[in-house]
Amino acid sequence: MTFRIAYSELHKLAEEAFRRAGLADDDARTGADVLAVTDAWGVFTHGTKNLAGYLRRLQAGGLRPRGQPRVVSEGPAWAVVDGDSSLGMVTSVLAMRKAVAKAKASGLAYVGVRNSCHFGAAGYYAWLAAQEGLIGIAMANDIPSVAAPGSRGAITGSNPLAYAVPAGKHRPILLDMAISTVAGGKVFAARARGEPIPNHWIIDAQGRPTSDPSGFPTVGALLPMAGHKGYGLALLIETLSGILSGAAITWGIHSWSHHDASLQTLHGAGFLAIDVKLLQEPETFTRRVDGLIDEIHAAPRADGVQRLYVPGEMEWERYDTAMREGICLPSDVVANLKAAAEMVGLKLPEGAES
Amino acid sequence: MTFRIAYSELHKLAEEAFRRAGLADDDARTGADVLAVTDAWGVFTHGTKNLAGYLRRLQAGGLRPRGQPRVVSEGPAWAVVDGDSSLGMVTSVLAMRKAVAKAKASGLAYVGVRNSCHFGAAGYYAWLAAQEGLIGIAMANDIPSVAAPGSRGAITGSNPLAYAVPAGKHRPILLDMAISTVAGGKVFAARARGEPIPNHWIIDAQGRPTSDPSGFPTVGALLPMAGHKGYGLALLIETLSGILSGAAITWGIHSWSHHDASLQTLHGAGFLAIDVKLLQEPETFTRRVDGLIDEIHAAPRADGVQRLYVPGEMEWERYDTAMREGICLPSDVVANLKAAAEMVGLKLPEGAES
Repeated sequence: MTFRIAYSELHKLAEEAFRRAGLADDDARTGADVLAVTDAWGVFTHGTKNLAGYLRRLQAGGLRPRGQPRVVSEGPAWAVVDGDSSLGMVTSVLAMRKAVAKAKASGLAYVGVRNSCHFGAAGYYAWLAAQEGLIGIAMANDIPSVAAPGSRGAITGSNPLAYAVPAGKHRPILLDMAISTVAGGKVFAARARGEPIPNHWIIDAQGRPTSDPSGFPTVGALLPMAGHKGYGLALLIETLSGILSGAAITWGIHSWSHHDASLQTLHGAGFLAIDVKLLQEPETFTRRVDGLIDEIHAAPRADGVQRLYVPGEMEWERYDTAMREGICLPSDVVANLKAAAEMVGLKLPEGAES
Repeated sequence: MTFRIAYSELHKLAEEAFRRAGLADDDARTGADVLAVTDAWGVFTHGTKNLAGYLRRLQAGGLRPRGQPRVVSEGPAWAVVDGDSSLGMVTSVLAMRKAVAKAKASGLAYVGVRNSCHFGAAGYYAWLAAQEGLIGIAMANDIPSVAAPGSRGAITGSNPLAYAVPAGKHRPILLDMAISTVAGGKVFAARARGEPIPNHWIIDAQGRPTSDPSGFPTVGALLPMAGHKGYGLALLIETLSGILSGAAITWGIHSWSHHDASLQTLHGAGFLAIDVKLLQEPETFTRRVDGLIDEIHAAPRADGVQRLYVPGEMEWERYDTAMREGICLPSDVVANLKAAAEMVGLKLPEGAES
């Protein structure tokens, strides 16, 4: 059972919920933008499904509704932002905008973030840069959930990494990935259905790969994608998101969803922006990106494959459909969204069940 | 059968070979540094094994012995270097040094490279930055050899990515990876032994995963690590190495090893350096990196696992052994090195076979 809702209705609901939780109008709109776009992309694990969790923290004090994220140190090509325990989306949008502004002057810029929280879909911030013609890269750390090769438990977070590259006639190339083989949500779903999982997804309490999801996440951990490569990328992201920004890392971070909601989560994040037009004619750049995309579209396909996708194309197609026809929210999202609405005295709009 | 050689002897051989191929003294030393350090790390696929191939190109004109890599455009936090078809190591060392110098003033810097060639092990350049207390990131594009999800053949290069993070009491964290599941060399080795391979390494002529290496690389392609994630990272590296620098991309690149040696290969590369001391007290940074490494070393291990490795630790241990006891070159490296020596009228030094 799904629930179809207009993008504008979903956005309005999230915005009003954030406002009722005490956020200023601009911040409520920013938070709603991130969550609603994420749902429009079809990335339902990181959209309004999590609204209730953010509201709980805003109400309990782990997130400060009127926190004031601010630049605490900066140079011509970098800055460090202290999030003041504001909503992660508010701090992250401010940070990427700062990176874009500095990159427009210097060619590229890094902005590190500390005292933040879960920021939702990393791809949103990368896209912010691409909308202005810049290459954007966004990353964050998180509570440990992913093993290292040989470990018995979690060593790093699933540390997301996203990038967006502006094109000309095409939409931006957009990749948003975690460094785990799969998201924890896929393991939960298999556990709920009582089904086994591929044995490269998680390890058990002894650190052995297992196809039994029943113990997760109480014991064991997710496996990193591509073994030591995913583990190695996780440590780079930990460095650029947590250590370089002065944020917490690994076990110093609190879960935004299941730790005491009155605690600050202390997440870190890192944002990079590169202004291509300082390095070359922007038309040359976007023409070459278009050429790469066209080349991929025209490349020979395996039997039965209809199309080769460039990263982001599936999301952009879902986005266009969502803007035209509304978003079909899966039932778990609807349940969480109802709970969120009730927390702040709101109701879901009447939706056409389909 | 292996061949043990002192680091200094191997370095001297490579340096003299490059000099006899026409390189200036400094450039010959730079090329030898990169190849000998790579062998000392035990990364034999990218060290002096490839010397003969570089010499062939230097003699045939595809590489210019007296090429003059130079900055063709720059800003405070970026530069573009034209390699003038010099040895890839010479251009890449110049580019990373430029990135380090600019990062020391601006906090971070990007240097893009065009008209270069195969640069060997990306990790060497990342380490150059770490030696001066900076975070270094190095990447390059290459001829297509890796599939995209659903493709029948290669779409991107195996596009290497390396990073180095300076620590305090520990050696730098150092990761050097390609975005393919495994290196092509592993497929060649299985083919030579007549053995099957895991079916997530390559695709066959129809684009289907196969455990039969016999057709590779004439048909088929390597598979990207972690499917769409590795493919997506390959396109980011293609963008930052090739498109942003004005280098060739994908099918516009020539193979340094098996295309006509009189052709310029036109590889691109990208180098990033971040000077941590502009963003925070360097002692704070290195203390936190040390803490992360200590935390990993102390973490619970799966049964039978002696130790959890931080990226680079295996390489640093081999490096220390190599400096102390010499390098045990595998037989395929020895054979290629003999051929290289003969090309320029040199002989391998007497080595203790072991």
